[in-house]
Amino acid sequence: LKQRKTNFGKRGMTLESEINETNLYYLETNRAVVHKKPTPVQIVQVDYPKRSAAVIREAYFKQASTTDYNGLYKGKYIDFEAKETRNRTSLPLANIHQHQVDHMKSVIEHDGICFLIIRFNHQGESYLLPAEHFLDFWNHQYDGGRKSVPLESIQSKGYKIPFSLQAKVDYLKVLDQVYL
Amino acid sequence: LKQRKTNFGKRGMTLESEINETNLYYLETNRAVVHKKPTPVQIVQVDYPKRSAAVIREAYFKQASTTDYNGLYKGKYIDFEAKETRNRTSLPLANIHQHQVDHMKSVIEHDGICFLIIRFNHQGESYLLPAEHFLDFWNHQYDGGRKSVPLESIQSKGYKIPFSLQAKVDYLKVLDQVYL
Ligand SMILES: [Mg+2]
Ligand SMILES: [Mg+2]
Repeated sequence: LKQRKTNFGKRGMTLESEINETNLYYLETNRAVVHKKPTPVQIVQVDYPKRSAAVIREAYFKQASTTDYNGLYKGKYIDFEAKETRNRTSLPLANIHQHQVDHMKSVIEHDGICFLIIRFNHQGESYLLPAEHFLDFWNHQYDGGRKSVPLESIQSKGYKIPFSLQAKVDYLKVLDQVYL
Repeated sequence: LKQRKTNFGKRGMTLESEINETNLYYLETNRAVVHKKPTPVQIVQVDYPKRSAAVIREAYFKQASTTDYNGLYKGKYIDFEAKETRNRTSLPLANIHQHQVDHMKSVIEHDGICFLIIRFNHQGESYLLPAEHFLDFWNHQYDGGRKSVPLESIQSKGYKIPFSLQAKVDYLKVLDQVYL
């Protein structure tokens, strides 16, 4: 039995923490209202010690039924999944779950703005890929297509996300240019 | 030290579970994409037993920074908080946190549709109250106003939500009538 303590939320989540920071900046400067959805957890047992906070003593991670982030920008519903990979040439589709894909389809169908933010850790670059293009790759894997989205395709179908000091993953810039 | 086991998520959450069911029905019939945000939890310690799922062994409830639900309906961003009360004549404002109020203000400012669903348990009736009206009550409490929203005001400024067998809290009906 291995135990891990402290900083659980931080392990390898560079992209997520940069997006969270960016969203906080967007919120504080009143540009957009976007939040990360909390990690879904099935709570089984809770202790209520006297005079201190309730402690969850047994709980399990649940599969997320949606994407990581959603919110509101210029009156539009936006929704996205953040993925980072150490792979240098493609994003493996195994990183994404069917639930998330179903959610993306629903969002598109109901006229929301849906996309992925994909970080290639080696290159240190992030791309915004519209979910429509991602779904083409996803569907194609079942009729003999590849099990990953090549970086080249992400570069041609997607958009490099600029970095700025305060908005480290400044994806609203891309939204302005592509969707709005 | 008290311990509670099982059904943690269910304690007294009639309204939430009915809304969750309703949302599932909306999703399955392709009418709207609305999800409850998971309860935010600060995870401190996780065990990784061999050959079985990771177990969270120490975690704490965090204050939610937003409302309970958000999603997409007819291309519009919608966002709401669900509250039920046993009080027969008003909804106590102490039931709502400043964070949630700030979030409602942001949503309105960015042209989202924001409201509360308020259930009076005794009467068994639910109302949709547009966040704009709720905020009037909220702000007024600081200049000598009451610390609760009277049922009468909820009835006059809000809308009774119809019940149907499949959509137990059929709030889209009200949205159609009021916002869309
Ligand atoms: Mg992710
Ligand atoms: Mg609530």
